Amino acid sequence: MELKNDLLLRALQRQPVDRTPVWIMRQAGRYLPEYLKTRAEAGTFMDLCQTPELACEVTLQPLRRFSLDAAIIFSDILTIPDVMGLKLYFIAGEGPRFENPIRSAEDIKKLPSPDVNESLAYVMDAIALTRRELNGKVPLIGFSGSPWTLATYMVEGGSSRTFSQTKKLIYQEPRLAHELLGKLANTVTDYLNAQIESGAQAIQIFDTWGGALSSKAYLEFSLRYMAQIVSGLKRENEGRKVPVILFSKGCNTQLEALADTGCDALGVDWTISLAEARSRVGDKVALQGNLVPAILLADRKVIRREVNDTLNSFGQGNGHVFNLGHGITPDVDPENLAALINAVWELSPGFHS
Amino acid sequence: MELKNDLLLRALQRQPVDRTPVWIMRQAGRYLPEYLKTRAEAGTFMDLCQTPELACEVTLQPLRRFSLDAAIIFSDILTIPDVMGLKLYFIAGEGPRFENPIRSAEDIKKLPSPDVNESLAYVMDAIALTRRELNGKVPLIGFSGSPWTLATYMVEGGSSRTFSQTKKLIYQEPRLAHELLGKLANTVTDYLNAQIESGAQAIQIFDTWGGALSSKAYLEFSLRYMAQIVSGLKRENEGRKVPVILFSKGCNTQLEALADTGCDALGVDWTISLAEARSRVGDKVALQGNLVPAILLADRKVIRREVNDTLNSFGQGNGHVFNLGHGITPDVDPENLAALINAVWELSPGFHS
Repeated sequence: MELKNDLLLRALQRQPVDRTPVWIMRQAGRYLPEYLKTRAEAGTFMDLCQTPELACEVTLQPLRRFSLDAAIIFSDILTIPDVMGLKLYFIAGEGPRFENPIRSAEDIKKLPSPDVNESLAYVMDAIALTRRELNGKVPLIGFSGSPWTLATYMVEGGSSRTFSQTKKLIYQEPRLAHELLGKLANTVTDYLNAQIESGAQAIQIFDTWGGALSSKAYLEFSLRYMAQIVSGLKRENEGRKVPVILFSKGCNTQLEALADTGCDALGVDWTISLAEARSRVGDKVALQGNLVPAILLADRKVIRREVNDTLNSFGQGNGHVFNLGHGITPDVDPENLAALINAVWELSPGFHS
Repeated sequence: MELKNDLLLRALQRQPVDRTPVWIMRQAGRYLPEYLKTRAEAGTFMDLCQTPELACEVTLQPLRRFSLDAAIIFSDILTIPDVMGLKLYFIAGEGPRFENPIRSAEDIKKLPSPDVNESLAYVMDAIALTRRELNGKVPLIGFSGSPWTLATYMVEGGSSRTFSQTKKLIYQEPRLAHELLGKLANTVTDYLNAQIESGAQAIQIFDTWGGALSSKAYLEFSLRYMAQIVSGLKRENEGRKVPVILFSKGCNTQLEALADTGCDALGVDWTISLAEARSRVGDKVALQGNLVPAILLADRKVIRREVNDTLNSFGQGNGHVFNLGHGITPDVDPENLAALINAVWELSPGFHS
């Protein structure tokens, strides 16, 4: 099956492109009425994730509306702890929770190493099905949460503002923390390799809570395990490179270290300019980002101006994938996202001349 | 009245000291049983803030337990919007709310310029009373929220994760946003000058949500107004310099710009090492911080090791005020804070030889 649009894969490898590819974090999400409809029909959020036909459907929905250069498989970052026995569920308006959070050293020691091809077969089936449905239109991205980010939810039992219990673990019982993170890194590696073998053509690792750590602890408890995963991934499949993107939110002081992990690209949040990020990572990696999501609440003139500013900040040359600096929010009018994508299509060729 | 311990004021001006002064953000807070007792007797949180005798009492409580080098007046960062008519209140577990949030351009245009000496007389009275009670033991710090941080609460109506409405305002109606921020900067300047005249001997501006902005928007909508306030403050009183500390959380990419505002010191959160922060700001400003608050959940051996690491990261020389990288959390055992402070007293003289 020929890949008709390889702009994303080329840009992630800093190869020449004639315009900047664009996809949007959480592009299959609550801002789309058709998503809300499928979500309501599915039952729970987990039912939606676990039914390959429905996960495929919501993955494809934004591609029907918008000229996006990639699909990203619809799933949750917390599938791994779910199948490790913590049992993920969602409370409306409060985010993810675990029925069996980690409460003791014993809980860490007894965590199983799940066979992801079996326990997460629904993800692999959704990827294979989506690849067939895409029929080479654009590449499909697979993903996982980073070990540190997974660990915070597992130890806190859900979302947190302070991550007190997880930080207490790393400072008070660092060896135990490393045991947990090591197990997670191994399973995430298996999981992402299984996604690649099922058809994922690029990989993104979401380190949503890396910015909660001190710069020293970040290197030891988050970055190290992402580097380990990067080293363990199958980087070529179907005769093509499978690029890996690391997105460590709130970690702009660590861009150099992230670029040294061997990944292909870094996701960049909006708190640093792409110009500064590029000057710091040089030619080592491509950059993905970084428009402020709230720009999508403004009008189209503002959106166009800010798209141009973002393209201009990266500047001339290869190695930029356009995206937001974090996920799109539910309050966005889909027409505004269309305006953003159109602006990228229209303005970006000028940066590849 | 002689100031018996001027270590804080000296360190904030990068003058020689024989040990590193230490105070703790939110040192008068819920981790202290005596605070909880006074808080319960006061009625609401706002009753506690608005009764000078009680605000003075809780300001002094941590100084009775710990060898701290500064007091910080007990108050809230949102007193200014409260007296601008938005009416601040608190819901247990959900943080601050406003009865009358900003909902329209008209709401911004009609915001009054309050006479802070009158409408916030309770803060001035608490400062004057606390100075008398301190009797020169340590200096007293006054504070306010930054205009941007105040604006987020005023526009969102309370806490937020995405700040969508405030960001929509700055991108869609920048002139209106500047009108709001300009009004706030003027009132915050008046407010902090009134605090200085009432006896505050150093000032800290809390820009808690500066990190929510893009690097470009940060300069235009947050930093500019803090710089304006710094320029408008009475910098000497009682024959002594009144140092100004800017604490912009999550804004480590902006340290150079912050150092150029004319302030004396920068608060530093824990996501950057003091070594890196120091190398970036050079001799322009002192640095305050930056231990991870969750270290206080670990045991005393770990606390001591991390205190040493923090002192060592700043290194030899003047211009360091020891603090956490953010406020102390309610789950901390006060004995662990005592261990931290003792470690600073014991270990820091080695960095001033």
